[in-house]
Amino acid sequence: MQIPMSDDFRIDIQLLDEPVTYVPLEQFPQSAGAECVFLGRTREEKHPSHGRLKRLSYECYEALAVKTLHDLAQQALNQYECFFVRVHHATGDVPPGAASVLVQVVCGHRGVSFEACRFLIDTLKKTVPIWKREQWEDGSTWSQGHPVQHDQDGQ
Amino acid sequence: MQIPMSDDFRIDIQLLDEPVTYVPLEQFPQSAGAECVFLGRTREEKHPSHGRLKRLSYECYEALAVKTLHDLAQQALNQYECFFVRVHHATGDVPPGAASVLVQVVCGHRGVSFEACRFLIDTLKKTVPIWKREQWEDGSTWSQGHPVQHDQDGQ
Repeated sequence: MQIPMSDDFRIDIQLLDEPVTYVPLEQFPQSAGAECVFLGRTREEKHPSHGRLKRLSYECYEALAVKTLHDLAQQALNQYECFFVRVHHATGDVPPGAASVLVQVVCGHRGVSFEACRFLIDTLKKTVPIWKREQWEDGSTWSQGHPVQHDQDGQ
Repeated sequence: MQIPMSDDFRIDIQLLDEPVTYVPLEQFPQSAGAECVFLGRTREEKHPSHGRLKRLSYECYEALAVKTLHDLAQQALNQYECFFVRVHHATGDVPPGAASVLVQVVCGHRGVSFEACRFLIDTLKKTVPIWKREQWEDGSTWSQGHPVQHDQDGQ
């Protein structure tokens, strides 16, 4: 079922110093009928004492973040029979409306494409060393500790 | 939680006479943290007696297809608390690699965005009066009967 394809094409992991956007596929595996994409965006929020959210600022331990994302992508490729996995994550500032994370998977059939995409976004939020700081009109706060906790915001 | 928005923005249903592509959002509801997208594409296939697949050709009963898609989108908006639902479906020819259907939903949180997107693609394949004909190198075949059956290809 799987067609020959280089590892470079099968996984695309990038940390970008700007908000992320959808990336059209340049090549498309001919046996792949399904593409599932998730974009996580900064929501407008208001803090009880610090005012409106101006932006989220992401920081990461880059070498480990890239390695962890690459391992996760490889796991998705094996576990869900994906042809291609892309994860782009912003570092730096992401204002309301802009996206901090893109997960894009290409599979033979739609069921596994949804499962793989969901697995990737759920797992990366728990395991990848990327932290966010909320920058309010008046002051800033760190999102709760370790990535293990910060999926509680459901973003 | 929901922000004021016209119905025109909240639902975008279109039948296009060419393959569909991802459409970036022009406006973004500021409380919406999650965008989930599904693209269904024509797979390369080979028929035991008719050779390789050249393209799929979609035909539909347009007025009813648009109405059914609009009703489904409205159901997703209510049921999953989406801010925005877009469904674009190709009519006419879609060669291998190109996409015949785009489902795009925007919600507050990621769980419901995945559920709404999956609900829409699964349900539209069962209920919307769009039929496809497989055009092979040598001859053509109709996909099995009614939309109720044609999700068996898992596209």
